[in-house]
Amino acid sequence: MKKLLLAGWAGAGLALAAARADEGMWLFNQPPRQQLKERYDFDTSNLWLDHLQKSSVRFNSGGSGSFVSEDGLLISNHHVGADALQKLSSEKKNYLHDGFYAKTTAEEVKCLDLELNVLQAIEDVTARVNAAIPAGADAAQSFLARRKVIAEIEKESLDRTGERSDVVTLWQGGAYHLYRYHRYTDVRLVFAPEQKIAFYGGDPDNFEFPRFDLDICLFRAYENGRPAKVKDFLKVSPAGPAEGDLVFVSGHPGATSRLLTMSELEYLRDRATPARLATLKRREVLLVNWSAREEENARRCREILFGVQNSRKAIDGRLAGLLDPALMGAKAKAEADFRAKLAGKAEFADAAAAYDQIAEATRISAANLVRSSLLEGGSAFDCESFRLARTLLRAGDERPKPNGERLREYSDSGKTSLELALFSEKPIYPDLEILTLTDSLTFFAGQLGAADPLVIQVLAGKSPRARAAELIERTRVRDLDLRRMIYNGGAKYAAGANDPMVELARLVDGEARALRKILEDQGEVKQRAHAALARARNALLGTSGYPDATFTLRLSFGAVAGYEEDGHGVPAFTTFSGLFERAKAMKNRSPFDLPPAWEKSQGRLHGKTPFNFVSTDDIIGGNSGSPVVNRAGEFVGIIFDGNLQSLPADYAYTDRQARATSVASAAILEALEKVYRVPNLRRELLAGKHAP
Amino acid sequence: MKKLLLAGWAGAGLALAAARADEGMWLFNQPPRQQLKERYDFDTSNLWLDHLQKSSVRFNSGGSGSFVSEDGLLISNHHVGADALQKLSSEKKNYLHDGFYAKTTAEEVKCLDLELNVLQAIEDVTARVNAAIPAGADAAQSFLARRKVIAEIEKESLDRTGERSDVVTLWQGGAYHLYRYHRYTDVRLVFAPEQKIAFYGGDPDNFEFPRFDLDICLFRAYENGRPAKVKDFLKVSPAGPAEGDLVFVSGHPGATSRLLTMSELEYLRDRATPARLATLKRREVLLVNWSAREEENARRCREILFGVQNSRKAIDGRLAGLLDPALMGAKAKAEADFRAKLAGKAEFADAAAAYDQIAEATRISAANLVRSSLLEGGSAFDCESFRLARTLLRAGDERPKPNGERLREYSDSGKTSLELALFSEKPIYPDLEILTLTDSLTFFAGQLGAADPLVIQVLAGKSPRARAAELIERTRVRDLDLRRMIYNGGAKYAAGANDPMVELARLVDGEARALRKILEDQGEVKQRAHAALARARNALLGTSGYPDATFTLRLSFGAVAGYEEDGHGVPAFTTFSGLFERAKAMKNRSPFDLPPAWEKSQGRLHGKTPFNFVSTDDIIGGNSGSPVVNRAGEFVGIIFDGNLQSLPADYAYTDRQARATSVASAAILEALEKVYRVPNLRRELLAGKHAP
Repeated sequence: MKKLLLAGWAGAGLALAAARADEGMWLFNQPPRQQLKERYDFDTSNLWLDHLQKSSVRFNSGGSGSFVSEDGLLISNHHVGADALQKLSSEKKNYLHDGFYAKTTAEEVKCLDLELNVLQAIEDVTARVNAAIPAGADAAQSFLARRKVIAEIEKESLDRTGERSDVVTLWQGGAYHLYRYHRYTDVRLVFAPEQKIAFYGGDPDNFEFPRFDLDICLFRAYENGRPAKVKDFLKVSPAGPAEGDLVFVSGHPGATSRLLTMSELEYLRDRATPARLATLKRREVLLVNWSAREEENARRCREILFGVQNSRKAIDGRLAGLLDPALMGAKAKAEADFRAKLAGKAEFADAAAAYDQIAEATRISAANLVRSSLLEGGSAFDCESFRLARTLLRAGDERPKPNGERLREYSDSGKTSLELALFSEKPIYPDLEILTLTDSLTFFAGQLGAADPLVIQVLAGKSPRARAAELIERTRVRDLDLRRMIYNGGAKYAAGANDPMVELARLVDGEARALRKILEDQGEVKQRAHAALARARNALLGTSGYPDATFTLRLSFGAVAGYEEDGHGVPAFTTFSGLFERAKAMKNRSPFDLPPAWEKSQGRLHGKTPFNFVSTDDIIGGNSGSPVVNRAGEFVGIIFDGNLQSLPADYAYTDRQARATSVASAAILEALEKVYRVPNLRRELLAGKHAP
Repeated sequence: MKKLLLAGWAGAGLALAAARADEGMWLFNQPPRQQLKERYDFDTSNLWLDHLQKSSVRFNSGGSGSFVSEDGLLISNHHVGADALQKLSSEKKNYLHDGFYAKTTAEEVKCLDLELNVLQAIEDVTARVNAAIPAGADAAQSFLARRKVIAEIEKESLDRTGERSDVVTLWQGGAYHLYRYHRYTDVRLVFAPEQKIAFYGGDPDNFEFPRFDLDICLFRAYENGRPAKVKDFLKVSPAGPAEGDLVFVSGHPGATSRLLTMSELEYLRDRATPARLATLKRREVLLVNWSAREEENARRCREILFGVQNSRKAIDGRLAGLLDPALMGAKAKAEADFRAKLAGKAEFADAAAAYDQIAEATRISAANLVRSSLLEGGSAFDCESFRLARTLLRAGDERPKPNGERLREYSDSGKTSLELALFSEKPIYPDLEILTLTDSLTFFAGQLGAADPLVIQVLAGKSPRARAAELIERTRVRDLDLRRMIYNGGAKYAAGANDPMVELARLVDGEARALRKILEDQGEVKQRAHAALARARNALLGTSGYPDATFTLRLSFGAVAGYEEDGHGVPAFTTFSGLFERAKAMKNRSPFDLPPAWEKSQGRLHGKTPFNFVSTDDIIGGNSGSPVVNRAGEFVGIIFDGNLQSLPADYAYTDRQARATSVASAAILEALEKVYRVPNLRRELLAGKHAP
């Protein structure tokens, strides 16, 4: 599933100099007009682009979506909405597992902490950002000056427009663009299918194709207590796409690493990725086995477990890419060729020197990987209570500082989002908290050794299990009123609360911040080196292309197309018939069984209706829920996954076998009509306005 | 489940000087007569002991059992027999999952490579072993001399008696005893229940109590093609034990580490155990997800996956013990107290110096942990084909050497066992082989870095997946005739076969052997230091106790007794009623559902029949399948597990909550009668002879 992976490494790199085939996650203000004209004879009008941009929605929880009705109705994936569904659910009512439909707007259920962003405008602020860096500044000074000017730009924009304003670092420091978003924080659930059909085939079929998933979820954006009126929304195509059609994807790819240097790729291959996978697999075993003990356990951690399994499968695939000599050999050759071009050219001396600077910065970062992941990354204290406690502690310490000098997540422009998360009424389960905290304290001790002075201080003379139980049982940060009080009261209240979890966060804060500073400073070194490489590349290769993904809006394009695998053809489309055949072939055993509503509907459904399809569009995690549109800008499907062969797309695009996977619009409409029997919702999708 | 864990660390240590309560895994030639007299007023007669010893059976695959009929019928756990059941199974006939019953001896199914050992005699050879070490020998010389004399003693005994002869290192080098076993290699399956009831509750309930498992499996030993006639077998008690009864366990605990020094325990806590757990969890995720894709996948790796999950849960529990300040604090205090006693006493200078010697040897071993686990431990190449290839390679190189100079597993006395395993006709599945080899080659690259010269040589310019597929598809070691040919032909044939897997084994053999030598030499340093500690302990504390477990026959004793947990009492017994209640409470969802035969039998079974029970006997992995006997030496139950609180027993015994878990004899007899309707088998158990 192409939900954003919180993968623990920074996105980086500059796009390939010469993008090939259907490659590219293009900026909306630098669209691939020439490629579209040459390859598909498509003229990219500004009107078409602007409409698509403003119909596209970012889920801050890590995915994409689009408006499909003037009354604020929007569609995304079930697995993107799952975070909201999980938070709404209880032992009594399981939205995530059972699905939901609101017959009237009155029945629509408000999500607890979901923020949606719709991109309104992009402004290039590169000159202002770069001008703020004093000549001759070292990396640490440069980092601080850059952070300060970015906070100023964001604050000014926020004050002027009232819109969410983010300065986005593109081309790994080659450019800075100010993105202004319209923000929705009153978002209500309209429709979700059963998880069994949304995620049909479960983890075994995840990232596979052929697929048969109705991975959709519908929400409605509200403003001032009423359905939001939106000017831009996508018209839904009843027929959907045909094989060979040009289709676009407008969404928010999370991060790619396509122009990392070899030293950075080798670090990912040999250190960061294996470490990340070990952590994920450890967590997967913990949660799978806890889930097996009680149904309610399984319900409580369902969404976390999905995220862990999804990341594990995706990152296993990425690591396979990094260990593939074809991919890495091509990368190494490209780097060697370009370095040869730079050699001896005085005007590119900074670019020629960049590789070694990046290698050294990577080496220093790698040397701090273990402790920084544990302490600043928080993998030593993995539970909601710790995350809340740290936010309370740091908010108290950061907010009195000038806006431009704070840790980035505490800047004025981030305040609304931070408070939405901090004051969420989502359920937090002490038993699950103790489980994950025990496991991560055990991991902490194993990574540093139980004799490490900080480990001794953290465990305070107790076993990981006893210490976790004590912390979770005694902390009061799960009390929303107390959180508000401490947050509003600031550092003095944070100290006065004498809360054991806040005090734990304080205990490790000094070293955590110091490690963060090391990584930020080394990041700045890399950023400057990559900027030099970008300038040289533009000068020598004469192309701009697209920057690496940054969880901001991008346009991809491609064709609906099957592929060859192990000597046989994989067709571009699956159908409803295929779903029922697969369930039968797998003897209806979980996760290949069907929800009752689908079993009953088999006779009513057209067997030949296209269900899922694949295309050559260039996507990655974060694109989940992105609309797939045709030349006319109509919604013909929704991205929900890529196949196994697409997983190394983090490092390089290929259209040989890698494919993006979507639910076809025809399947969505027919399922709403015949399985769920929700004619009003279907009518709203077809008419583009609410049908009460 | 208390099957022997191949845990990757060496058993070590000397028993606690003063064994307390029901502690101890006692040698049959040094039984706890005094403790039994004092605590239970039990007189331990030699006749009683000798009968129990010769009724006890060791499963070389990692468990225990006992004869229960003069016609060679023996009982063990289902999960001990599972290895044999898995090897007999195919896509068509799944003995492991479905169970089995042979109505006549003609229907009994011969196991493929199962070896059973029955201890006949013990002889103390300490003086001869120690006399063979030249005065002033360093660790390396000492290791070689010791290996040589041990091989000689074993060979002489084998030649003289024709019985399997193993010199066992006890007290971590304080004593050497020659164990002579009668060996059975024609072992046939008589009865197995469905895995669903044998392992009721699956991984979630493993190591928990209350439990409801019919964890039994019956085999018959054959000699000369006919059921073996055995003089010693246990009479089965129809009633089983009562609360408070004294009960003995006679079995083969695999390894304990109760008198490791602090430096050794810290190494286990901070390095070896976390690394082992990471490997297990990685493998668990791989196999669980492969199993979910196809039922046949699940069948093929069922027994491997059980072993992985069983080890993971057990070792998680052990690590919790190592991170428990109560346990480690007591260990540290005991060590400090004893070191204080040694201080300044010239006659114990060697013991006083031992701690630092052990710490240094541990440090050197730890520094070689990663590469030695990968190369000599073979975790870089985890598949059956590699293990076979390495055996063929090394057999060719080792067998021409004098017996006393070979790697231990190639000595003359080990020949029969080695050939039984090497020429096993067990199925080996290429798809599973590629799966595990891909995963372990990926792990290998991640551990050493893909730029490591040996990694580059091993991968030969291919991705882990491509290299694994090539190796598994091209090797011919899965061909039994070829294995025989190479083995009989020796090193020349191994080279001439030009087999890619044998050549891979050869490629890494130099470094693997070098690493093994480092660990063996450091092991010798530790062995000599521990022997000095043992002498000092005997002199100063004046007790002998019992040595750490070594997968040799031991006697434990204790009482049938419940315990307190979270403020409520856990009764000693569960019943058949409890089983049906649990299935109902868990809504019959897997793994809490019942096999059809049990669902149908509910009305016929006595609800109050004792099903499982707990006792204070001191056991550990390897004790699975051990008979539990009463004062009269009658079989009253069979060990199959310990509770979660017993998992740190590797390091220390406690009778507060730690308990051994058994199936009661009454439940076995009633299930055979009423669920399985196998009156002949039940009659044989009651009469102690075959009832055709």
